[in-house]
Amino acid sequence: MSKVISYHIDVLFGDCDPAGIVFFPNFLKWMDASSLNFFMQCGLPPWRAWTEPANMIGTPLIEIRTQFHKPATYGETLTVHTEITEFARKTFTHRHQVKRGEQLICEGTEIRAFCTRDPATGIVKAIPLPDVVLRQCR
Amino acid sequence: MSKVISYHIDVLFGDCDPAGIVFFPNFLKWMDASSLNFFMQCGLPPWRAWTEPANMIGTPLIEIRTQFHKPATYGETLTVHTEITEFARKTFTHRHQVKRGEQLICEGTEIRAFCTRDPATGIVKAIPLPDVVLRQCR
Amino acid sequence: MSKVISYHIDVLFGDCDPAGIVFFPNFLKWMDASSLNFFMQCGLPPWRAWTEPANMIGTPLIEIRTQFHKPATYGETLTVHTEITEFARKTFTHRHQVKRGEQLICEGTEIRAFCTRDPATGIVKAIPLPDVVLRQCR
Amino acid sequence: MSKVISYHIDVLFGDCDPAGIVFFPNFLKWMDASSLNFFMQCGLPPWRAWTEPANMIGTPLIEIRTQFHKPATYGETLTVHTEITEFARKTFTHRHQVKRGEQLICEGTEIRAFCTRDPATGIVKAIPLPDVVLRQCR
Repeated sequence: MSKVISYHIDVLFGDCDPAGIVFFPNFLKWMDASSLNFFMQCGLPPWRAWTEPANMIGTPLIEIRTQFHKPATYGETLTVHTEITEFARKTFTHRHQVKRGEQLICEGTEIRAFCTRDPATGIVKAIPLPDVVLRQCR
Repeated sequence: MSKVISYHIDVLFGDCDPAGIVFFPNFLKWMDASSLNFFMQCGLPPWRAWTEPANMIGTPLIEIRTQFHKPATYGETLTVHTEITEFARKTFTHRHQVKRGEQLICEGTEIRAFCTRDPATGIVKAIPLPDVVLRQCR
Repeated sequence: MSKVISYHIDVLFGDCDPAGIVFFPNFLKWMDASSLNFFMQCGLPPWRAWTEPANMIGTPLIEIRTQFHKPATYGETLTVHTEITEFARKTFTHRHQVKRGEQLICEGTEIRAFCTRDPATGIVKAIPLPDVVLRQCR
Repeated sequence: MSKVISYHIDVLFGDCDPAGIVFFPNFLKWMDASSLNFFMQCGLPPWRAWTEPANMIGTPLIEIRTQFHKPATYGETLTVHTEITEFARKTFTHRHQVKRGEQLICEGTEIRAFCTRDPATGIVKAIPLPDVVLRQCR
């Protein structure tokens, strides 16, 4: 298990659909934002600034499972609570809970891998979890 | 089981992230688009035009599980193949396969409900699958 | 002239494009968010809660002119400074400056109108600026 | 002046806002898509594949002026008609007209520059219009 780090979201008018509620892919965008925020709050640099390993492109998703419990709308503030629930050799599992105050709005479980891109071939591949992640994110 | 209906996507520059690949929430946006296209190809009107039942807001998601197999990038054309794999009383299950030619890029399984909004209270609630859906979408 | 109200933006990974910089339509999305924030900070309710006039849909854009001075990227915080520079009978002019610290990143001038939708016909039309706007937003 | 090249857009549910109409930054996203399509239809490769000049990141916007004439909504098909109305030394001017059938929905005038990124310093700078652009896009 890891620390739990929170990230605040102001829901914008443009995040909502003709039903007047958040268009659901935006919840996944916010989980992604909260994932990056998690690593930056743990002291890791933005992906573009990594040198060891070099050519880091970030942590592409392998799988995500998301459950939607309540709608949300613009003018509201939501909080995404993000943690790592499992560290495997080449992947890790993120758990995100999106809340409005104490009320659970939606939750997601993601499996992601740290990936680099070979600058010669352009090929993207998963690498073992970097040591700095194991050291700073638990 | 239902018919399978295909929907074409041109991947835009703005759909891709700093890693040069599709930012994953866009795959879910395209599955959502393919879901609406599925119903319209089955002969149903856009949500705003429904009168029976009235105050239809569409088919909000209850749960989605998505697996990402290969990256995609701008300038490519993808096809979303969408079907309904289960009709329950108040929910249905969508299966979406996103392909580039024959290659499977990602796939998603969604549980959705048809929902109306009470105009007086603003409350959104799931309704039994409308008959027209059972008649025209299998 | 009006008050100037500031709105903070965390630039997300998914807001950036394959060039690694903010995909420009997102600047316009943030100006739109800052416009709504402006009105809410002036004490106006969210559009869906207006009763006088009823059927308010918000302030659709008539025209926008935007200049881009510097790129921005994820992990940065930007501030949108928003004011109303002109109140006309049925339109108003917004000026937005997007800054990173003291540095001007981009700026936009928008002409917008308050609009209602006739519930019977669905027709959207501009209305004279509501009194509450003239009273509370200068 | 240049050729005029058309690009088709299916308006998605998620492209629309709580007013039930296209959220305006999406029109700019589609103009951007039509710009890229314009260059690809002229026979230019996607930005990532350019070698002469190398390190091409695309054609960032310097300025855009957009006028919105009519709303649009989901389930509609729009066409963006794109041309280059001026070729300057380091910039060019795009004109986009977004139509639904014969009806003009919105139009935009963009000033853009071809830009490369120095791989050592990360600095983005405008370059003279590449010869291939002058040859193939008029």
